Amino acid sequence: MSTQITLYTAQVSPYAQSVEIVLYEAKAKYTRYEIDLRNKPDWFAAKVNPIGQVPAMTYGGPEVPPDQPSADSLKMRESIILLEFVAELFPEAHLLPSNPVLRYKARLFMDILKTKAVPAWYGYFLRGEPVEAVFSALKELQAVLPPTGYVAGDFSIADAEVAPFLVRMSVMLESELLLFDAKPGEGNAVMEILREQQFERLTRYTHDVMDRPSFKATFDKDALVDTYKKWAIIMREEKRQKEKQS
Amino acid sequence: MSTQITLYTAQVSPYAQSVEIVLYEAKAKYTRYEIDLRNKPDWFAAKVNPIGQVPAMTYGGPEVPPDQPSADSLKMRESIILLEFVAELFPEAHLLPSNPVLRYKARLFMDILKTKAVPAWYGYFLRGEPVEAVFSALKELQAVLPPTGYVAGDFSIADAEVAPFLVRMSVMLESELLLFDAKPGEGNAVMEILREQQFERLTRYTHDVMDRPSFKATFDKDALVDTYKKWAIIMREEKRQKEKQS
Ligand SMILES: N[C@@H](CCC(=O)N[C@@H](CS)C(=O)NCC(=O)O)C(=O)O
Ligand SMILES: N[C@@H](CCC(=O)N[C@@H](CS)C(=O)NCC(=O)O)C(=O)O
Repeated sequence: MSTQITLYTAQVSPYAQSVEIVLYEAKAKYTRYEIDLRNKPDWFAAKVNPIGQVPAMTYGGPEVPPDQPSADSLKMRESIILLEFVAELFPEAHLLPSNPVLRYKARLFMDILKTKAVPAWYGYFLRGEPVEAVFSALKELQAVLPPTGYVAGDFSIADAEVAPFLVRMSVMLESELLLFDAKPGEGNAVMEILREQQFERLTRYTHDVMDRPSFKATFDKDALVDTYKKWAIIMREEKRQKEKQS
Repeated sequence: MSTQITLYTAQVSPYAQSVEIVLYEAKAKYTRYEIDLRNKPDWFAAKVNPIGQVPAMTYGGPEVPPDQPSADSLKMRESIILLEFVAELFPEAHLLPSNPVLRYKARLFMDILKTKAVPAWYGYFLRGEPVEAVFSALKELQAVLPPTGYVAGDFSIADAEVAPFLVRMSVMLESELLLFDAKPGEGNAVMEILREQQFERLTRYTHDVMDRPSFKATFDKDALVDTYKKWAIIMREEKRQKEKQS
């Protein structure tokens, strides 16, 4: 019997999808539990992830219902570290190449996402900071890619980490779901730039990842857009209330 | 003949010391080049690390003088990723345990340093933000430690990454080298708290790492304090100039 794995996840979260992708690629047996991020159950922070984020994972301990986590399982978090963990649990899935130089590239790609692209995107998307910072982070990601294929040759955890974020960025832009007071059409105007030749390699790369069965099986665009739209209404309202107060 | 490794480093940098520690532990043959961070040579950003930080490494290519880097070597950066790389290049040094759960702990420890402890420390040290954020990050690190020994059992890259930072924090506090307008004695008052029973495990851990030959061989406290003191004078002056201008 294999050690139990429970994944706490959310459709909206790119980081959570990353872990779902690699579990799918590894053909792992696991229990999936969707957390409603706008209405998290109390036991989640209390018993699974003290910082309340998805993805979170329990590993080992007895088989229990996901909403009654056992005290005896290991509680795990942080998508990139979870991806490394899954790659190591299922070596036969070859989710990281064995060549140290290629592993370096995979990890640098994930680090650029975490430390540059994500902060730049949130700065733009939430607060309307210059979109050029997003372009520059995307160029940095693109520069790590080889002329064709995935970042480290074969498909790896780095592709699972980065592509879900890039896809969600496009979805938000196309659906005009920017949370600052953007001019109507601004999202699609930015999207036009991302479709230009200067980002051609990154676009092609993203589609290569989206074409994989593991991506398709863990992604539902319509549901995503629905949820984002609901959140955008709530978050704009919250912002308005805050601005009124101050 | 082994592939050439050149490390661009700086005594002051905890991240750079981390890489020196693991290269020492791995008994790696490499060329060490000290970068003066207050006066970086132009070729460093142009030819080695575009973001201008240490640690940076070149791997492969011909043997060349470090200040004339070859176009044919791989240019590498980011301490945590470099540590993973060195661990993989020198598997016989056992710089990461083979057990995936212990590897998870090692990586989580490094992630807490990077995403919590470092930002909290800079907030306090540079801008005088509440020191409680530092305490809370240190508690989080401490919670990952087993009752005795290193974070993942045997010494690992995670200990190399985290301890140099903790040591530098203590040195700055003891030397009253805080860069905001701290009250005289504030550094030592904070240091008193860090010496309390509540941080006993982390203190003992830090000393365990400091006792290793690899730490001692890559650390010079007096030189560090000298440099920090010089920098503190320059940085305080720069701050004063900036405040005058605005
Ligand atoms: N660094 C984390 C980030 C995870 C994260 O930001 N998750 C978001 C969803 S995309 C979340 O759970 N937010 C809920 C909250 O903070 O309340 C990782 O890579 O796993
Ligand atoms: N995330 C990087 C951080 C490296 C870093 O911050 N290096 C500092 C020294 S501690 C540096 O080189 N600063 C020089 C500069 O930015 O000009 C790593 O872990 O390697």
